[in-house]
Amino acid sequence: MKIEEILRKIQPADTEWVEKARARTAQLAIPPRALGRLHEIAERLCGISRTLAPEVARRAILVMAGDHGVAAEGVSAFPQEVTGEMVKNFIRGGAGINALARWVGADVIVVDMGIIPDVDALSIEGNNSFRPCKVGRGTANLARGPAMSREQAETAILQGFELASEQFSKGIQIIGTGDMGIANTTPSAAIGVALTGSSVEAMVGRGTGIDDASLQKKRAVIQQAVAANRPDPSDGLDVLAKVGGFEIGGIAGCVLAGACHRRPVVVDGFISTAGALIAQVLCPFVTDYLFSGHCSEEPGHRIMLKHLGLEPILDLRMRLGEGTGAALAMGVMEAAMRVFREVLTFAEAGVSNEPAR
Amino acid sequence: MKIEEILRKIQPADTEWVEKARARTAQLAIPPRALGRLHEIAERLCGISRTLAPEVARRAILVMAGDHGVAAEGVSAFPQEVTGEMVKNFIRGGAGINALARWVGADVIVVDMGIIPDVDALSIEGNNSFRPCKVGRGTANLARGPAMSREQAETAILQGFELASEQFSKGIQIIGTGDMGIANTTPSAAIGVALTGSSVEAMVGRGTGIDDASLQKKRAVIQQAVAANRPDPSDGLDVLAKVGGFEIGGIAGCVLAGACHRRPVVVDGFISTAGALIAQVLCPFVTDYLFSGHCSEEPGHRIMLKHLGLEPILDLRMRLGEGTGAALAMGVMEAAMRVFREVLTFAEAGVSNEPAR
Repeated sequence: MKIEEILRKIQPADTEWVEKARARTAQLAIPPRALGRLHEIAERLCGISRTLAPEVARRAILVMAGDHGVAAEGVSAFPQEVTGEMVKNFIRGGAGINALARWVGADVIVVDMGIIPDVDALSIEGNNSFRPCKVGRGTANLARGPAMSREQAETAILQGFELASEQFSKGIQIIGTGDMGIANTTPSAAIGVALTGSSVEAMVGRGTGIDDASLQKKRAVIQQAVAANRPDPSDGLDVLAKVGGFEIGGIAGCVLAGACHRRPVVVDGFISTAGALIAQVLCPFVTDYLFSGHCSEEPGHRIMLKHLGLEPILDLRMRLGEGTGAALAMGVMEAAMRVFREVLTFAEAGVSNEPAR
Repeated sequence: MKIEEILRKIQPADTEWVEKARARTAQLAIPPRALGRLHEIAERLCGISRTLAPEVARRAILVMAGDHGVAAEGVSAFPQEVTGEMVKNFIRGGAGINALARWVGADVIVVDMGIIPDVDALSIEGNNSFRPCKVGRGTANLARGPAMSREQAETAILQGFELASEQFSKGIQIIGTGDMGIANTTPSAAIGVALTGSSVEAMVGRGTGIDDASLQKKRAVIQQAVAANRPDPSDGLDVLAKVGGFEIGGIAGCVLAGACHRRPVVVDGFISTAGALIAQVLCPFVTDYLFSGHCSEEPGHRIMLKHLGLEPILDLRMRLGEGTGAALAMGVMEAAMRVFREVLTFAEAGVSNEPAR
């Protein structure tokens, strides 16, 4: 499928089903909307699925991995080898996302969207699925030119779309996005600057924990990348190609897949939300199908979320990526559906719904 | 046991175990403290249990119910009968707390701390435990005198202590507190005013949803209750007796039990935190063992939490009570322990921990 075909299929979520869901909430033996955002989450899920019985029990996290040429500029606290090492750790089941996904009952699909090394997944013990979808062996250095070609950008998005579509077609009901890629807060911040109009100062943070000198360097690199590459903010593919990353393209593809198949997608933190920004330029309706799992400690994240009109579900001062915030939020979303489905109505419970006196 | 004996047994949490836990966190294949509050939660649990392997998998929510004479003043949007009706709904398993507790895997113990009707639990279908511990048939109207006698206050606390202790002794590893009681934001706010020094204006909100006129009335009632009863802020039993409630005393007892048995207790929202305020006056060390599950929409809750030095885990605009915020937060706490226990170290995972370059 071509991206244009995908975009043509995407419709807004159904506000009529949201209204029907609100009417159901009002009957539950709970004071008016006293479970706050749990009600909103359940009602949005009804609008997405066009039913009053949406299910989010079959969950998967797609952890998209990619390497970044810009790592050569010294913008990360960790060496580039860590990307591949962590991919192996995901497959082995030993990372943060694995622990959280096990708790919340989500599958973890580890995707090589474009890391430098080859991963021999079969040699690694563990039950987690690995998917080789290499678009390239790391991006080019975006401080010195486009990160990738327009064709690569399109391929990355389509790979992400296909991977997520495959999950939905085999029965997965909700997808969380995750990322791994040393230096990938740099392209994400560049996308944020290009698409939200934010200043570099406000958008750029310390990633995994760089010092003041590296932070200044990182800001200069992003300033330069945006100024030199001149990404066109009305063209999502152009922004992705010039200042993006392969895993960010894959995440944008997941977001399109949710909207296309009318399934919810939970974006994780800063990098995933940069992917959502790309998808939103391609089709503004995608935000109807999106949930923000958590607010990252990376300062630009709030700016991105505001631009998308998304309110994060959790705020636990996390900044790991991998899909960890998405996984945790899936637990809250399941809780929201349990309340919507399982709480008795005032009538069923025999509880008075008349005002006092 | 007398309250004095309980208080003598309570020691602060162990900061040495917190330090050992921090050292363990630093070895995990995660950038320094990148899972933010999940690390803090796990480390606090280590300090509470004096081990590096605390377990919070066996969970219970104690839903404490009581009626309030002050309901006669028109301070609630719902009639007083709803307290007993909701107790039956808890036993039947049809309320918000039941749905959330099922999802998070927590037992629900429904406790009659002092509601007006008698509940024939055996006549209600459902698998949830009911415990009759009536201290009285509703409190007296605190706008016109003390809510209860000092002996009743002591009994309520000791009942809560015994109930929670029994749960811990049968293997429960973490307790969440919950409440039910029409009009109980009124005594809770009065406790908040008496113990935090807050103004009535800042402390008092709309509870289940009263209108402007009732809100003004409620504020006047609380002002009058505190002025006329003159609760002594250095004497937790006096505050509970004069402006409290039976279920609030029961919650204070649960808080003391956690600290006494070195087990974590998660308080829910406004009413539960009022119980924690009472316990904290009795013994300041209790806050070491306490977690705040969520921040309520009730405006005074933040003031109470600040006074106790607790930071809420969730903030989802909830204001239901019943223990719903505590139950949801238990999921995050379990997630924190999974990360602490299951994530491989840099060495185990073969991931580089050297700075870049």
